[in-house]
Amino acid sequence: AGNSSAGQEKSARCMACHGAEGKASAPIYPNLAGQHAPYLAQALQAYKSGARSGGQAEVMKAFVAGLSDEDIDDLAAYYAGLKP
Amino acid sequence: AGNSSAGQEKSARCMACHGAEGKASAPIYPNLAGQHAPYLAQALQAYKSGARSGGQAEVMKAFVAGLSDEDIDDLAAYYAGLKP
Repeated sequence: AGNSSAGQEKSARCMACHGAEGKASAPIYPNLAGQHAPYLAQALQAYKSGARSGGQAEVMKAFVAGLSDEDIDDLAAYYAGLKP
Repeated sequence: AGNSSAGQEKSARCMACHGAEGKASAPIYPNLAGQHAPYLAQALQAYKSGARSGGQAEVMKAFVAGLSDEDIDDLAAYYAGLKP
C-alpha cells in the first residue's frame, strides 16, 4: 500500500487539472478525492503503459511516464484519503 | 446535456460493480457518484472506442458497446448528480 504523505509531496504535477484537494479544476477532468486507491493505481498504470490512449490520455501518459510503481501507489493513497 | 432520470433507468447494468448509488462494490472499481458528467461521458466514449483497452477496460467495452451517445450522456448526468 502507498504512503499518503509521500503521495502528497509527489502530487504537485497533478494539481493544475485535479485540484489542490483532488477536486478537478474543470469538469472534463475527474475528481480524485476519495476515489478508491486500487482503482487510481490501476488507472495510472494504464496511462503509463499506453492501455489508455488518445485525447487527454496522452497528457496523462506524459505526466506519469516518470512515475515508479511506488510513486503511483503513494499518489493513489494520497487521493483516496481526501474528502470527496 | 444528458437526462439524469433516463440515465437512472439505463444504469441497471452498471450497478453490480459501481453500486446502486454510484459507490463501487469493490475498490478496484471507481466510485461514480458526484463525478463530473463531461469526464464520465469522455471515459465511456473511450471504453466504447477502444481507446481504453486491457484489463477491466475489456469488461467496460463489452458493457458500453450498445450505448448511443444519448445513453452515455444520460448515464453521465445520472452519476454526476449522485452524492459522493
